[in-house]
Amino acid sequence: MAKDKKLVTAITSMEEDFAQWYTDICKKAELIEYTSVKGCMVIRPYGYAIWENIQHILDSRFKATGHENVCMPMFIPESLLQKEKDHVEGFAPEVAWVTHGGNEKLEDRLCVRPTSETLFCEHYANIVHSYRDLPKLYNQWVSVVRWEKTTRPFLRSREFLWQEGHTIHATAEEAIEETERMLNVYADFCEDSLAMPVVKGKKTESDKFAGAVSTYAIEALMHDGKALQAGTSHYFGDGFAKAFDIEYTDKENKRVFPHQTSWGVTTRLIGAVIMTHGDDNGLVLPPAVAPIQVVIIPVAQHKEGVLEKANELKDRLAAIGLRVKLDDSENSPGWKFAEYEMKGVPLRVEIGPRDIEEGNCVIASRWNGEKVTVALGDLETAAEQKLKEAHDGMYRKALDNQTRRTYACTSIDEINKALEQGDGFIKAMWCGEEACEDSIKEQTGVGSRCIPFEQEHLSDVCVCCGKPAKHMVYWGKAY
Amino acid sequence: MAKDKKLVTAITSMEEDFAQWYTDICKKAELIEYTSVKGCMVIRPYGYAIWENIQHILDSRFKATGHENVCMPMFIPESLLQKEKDHVEGFAPEVAWVTHGGNEKLEDRLCVRPTSETLFCEHYANIVHSYRDLPKLYNQWVSVVRWEKTTRPFLRSREFLWQEGHTIHATAEEAIEETERMLNVYADFCEDSLAMPVVKGKKTESDKFAGAVSTYAIEALMHDGKALQAGTSHYFGDGFAKAFDIEYTDKENKRVFPHQTSWGVTTRLIGAVIMTHGDDNGLVLPPAVAPIQVVIIPVAQHKEGVLEKANELKDRLAAIGLRVKLDDSENSPGWKFAEYEMKGVPLRVEIGPRDIEEGNCVIASRWNGEKVTVALGDLETAAEQKLKEAHDGMYRKALDNQTRRTYACTSIDEINKALEQGDGFIKAMWCGEEACEDSIKEQTGVGSRCIPFEQEHLSDVCVCCGKPAKHMVYWGKAY
Repeated sequence: MAKDKKLVTAITSMEEDFAQWYTDICKKAELIEYTSVKGCMVIRPYGYAIWENIQHILDSRFKATGHENVCMPMFIPESLLQKEKDHVEGFAPEVAWVTHGGNEKLEDRLCVRPTSETLFCEHYANIVHSYRDLPKLYNQWVSVVRWEKTTRPFLRSREFLWQEGHTIHATAEEAIEETERMLNVYADFCEDSLAMPVVKGKKTESDKFAGAVSTYAIEALMHDGKALQAGTSHYFGDGFAKAFDIEYTDKENKRVFPHQTSWGVTTRLIGAVIMTHGDDNGLVLPPAVAPIQVVIIPVAQHKEGVLEKANELKDRLAAIGLRVKLDDSENSPGWKFAEYEMKGVPLRVEIGPRDIEEGNCVIASRWNGEKVTVALGDLETAAEQKLKEAHDGMYRKALDNQTRRTYACTSIDEINKALEQGDGFIKAMWCGEEACEDSIKEQTGVGSRCIPFEQEHLSDVCVCCGKPAKHMVYWGKAY
Repeated sequence: MAKDKKLVTAITSMEEDFAQWYTDICKKAELIEYTSVKGCMVIRPYGYAIWENIQHILDSRFKATGHENVCMPMFIPESLLQKEKDHVEGFAPEVAWVTHGGNEKLEDRLCVRPTSETLFCEHYANIVHSYRDLPKLYNQWVSVVRWEKTTRPFLRSREFLWQEGHTIHATAEEAIEETERMLNVYADFCEDSLAMPVVKGKKTESDKFAGAVSTYAIEALMHDGKALQAGTSHYFGDGFAKAFDIEYTDKENKRVFPHQTSWGVTTRLIGAVIMTHGDDNGLVLPPAVAPIQVVIIPVAQHKEGVLEKANELKDRLAAIGLRVKLDDSENSPGWKFAEYEMKGVPLRVEIGPRDIEEGNCVIASRWNGEKVTVALGDLETAAEQKLKEAHDGMYRKALDNQTRRTYACTSIDEINKALEQGDGFIKAMWCGEEACEDSIKEQTGVGSRCIPFEQEHLSDVCVCCGKPAKHMVYWGKAY
């Protein structure tokens, strides 16, 4: 057995040190590796394959809603970045600056895009002239750079992969509708493909994207009770259009400003998957994005007929469109069990001489550890059913965790008391004033996550100032 | 009809000004748009969709040959770039330098990757320890930056999209085999999917990639007789491994250096498609990568039943997996004909009241202008056949052009005489000395393109010095 092949060693338990548990999974499941480029990482094949699956599903959803992909330059001239005041204020302090090309000093330095509103606006000014040119529904899959001080794999890194949708519309109504449509696409994707429940809502004024009229977000709750912003969608009104001189001629032959949106999700979703579903044995992947959905592990594979049968099962599962791998390496079955548990493969099929004799195989489900014996003839049906059960079970479990850790509070004291049981979502009424938002954070440690679309009436007054409440807000500690 | 919608205006003819013809197509077919970022461009939806099709086909071929995708950082610390002497000498003069992150000056400045050998090497040093860890067959789809002085859309821009394969193997033999395998993947792709014949061969010493032991390339001949390097594949030996301390323990428990390769194709392939197949009416796209394979244009669409029938045809073609678009906009059929000719859509289906009455439609092929009347019941078969004919015909036409413009020469005089008929490939014998290579270029204007794998014996001696010839070489003027 494995001579100098490294053994899968245990990882730090979640209870003991959640942050270390997270990093251990990133490394041991071979999702990432560090580099000498500070704050940047290598996304390894197994991690990248998860991203490819995410891309594939989301890209289909974007195209089904009429969007087209484009590619903008990765650089933004400083002069262009400065055109929208709020936007540049928000981003300039955290961009990487290119000052030299070859041996030449640049006159107008270039930043590496932290986001591409300015480039899209410049392009729209070139191509949008008439109401017939609208809407433009564009998206791009690229990486962006933000010079973060402290970084963590997937959650916060100086360079990260994302998609950024940028759309431009004739009317405010259409643009707002688009903002909501894409937030729903994200929410549905998180639930349908990542088995991750999210809360949809609007960000408070203080938490808006730089340059936006309003920012919508989906918020998820991690294992440790911390909130993670999993996707955002921004409505810009005509502010960018005015700053970039984008005008069009409407049907009445008048010159008017169009309305814009942008929306994005990032490789952070992989971090969300780890912290929503993972356990002390490693990663647990939702079937829809798992690079390997079923791993087949032969037992006593040197015995006659075992590898043949294992290959046959592999071919049968591949034939129904499942992503399946047969591990016929010389490592022991025990080693392999641990390896694919660490990698979060949803189903393991075990097949040995006795199983073959009895016409059975064993299917083990990663998410709940359940093992069932299945007649070989029923393999396809059983695998599909177990994958569906895995998705549904994982979603239910995550939703239970979220529900259990969500506390409705009507006073600062109640909030602090609730948080003694551990971090989670706090639902509490708010007057809408930034001063109270700040004060709540100061007194309890939780910040506003979003004003959910699904409002509840918990009381008439703000938990902080006692004045009439405007909204129920989700509060939490954020990643 | 079209009120303020811009009309498709004629483009410069190829004969009149080839360079302007090329740029006109890039703009009028809506492939690209310029930006305020010098030397960089926007790849617009129609251009990007071609790239997505190229990616999709190539990525499947890479995966079918065992490769996995990863993602490296876009930055390379200067100290890392300097580790391999030839490599840094080749690339340092043309990289973009990031000197500041936010307001902070960086101690070790970072270049924006011009290529990623150094990052892959650093990663391999971390993950390759034993013969069991080999080979690693990695690829990434990213953009890279090279600070070019003069730029042209797709052919030479400061930022361009590409894929870069980077592999590491136990032995030199395996690595060389990989280098050749991937060159063949590229050549097959160019012929099978781009309908573009290529010459496969080895670059001369003076034309090698910085840091390579040998560089292989595929060379294509454009409409104007200029050669275009369409893809390269490099064998590195163990030079990078030594520079980056990548060692592994072999089966005999000895520490040895592994052998590496890299290989890449870029968005330049889109330029190659334009200049191989385009004509004075615009782009002509090979069916395999055309974003729209069939456009349906209703004639007298206001008449009863026309749009209904057009929609029915669209659904039928979509059902057999074709990329099909129905243009039911209010523009005139004539405007639409010109528009989709400009965009190089392989087939146009015309359907009007008379056609419906007669149970027919008309299929027009973009590549040769042929129009045929087809019974509506035969639409699917006819469309598939016409697409196949388009691919085959385009390939044959391009090969004819290449053959007609390839001249076998046995003296400098013959080369110059051949070139009087126009640019093209010159086949001529060479002694292998760089001095002769330089002298040939000086005397005739053509440089070595490659030493083709398919050698011919044209004479015993070098066309330049008259000493014994070592190779037959393809010479040409290059893009």
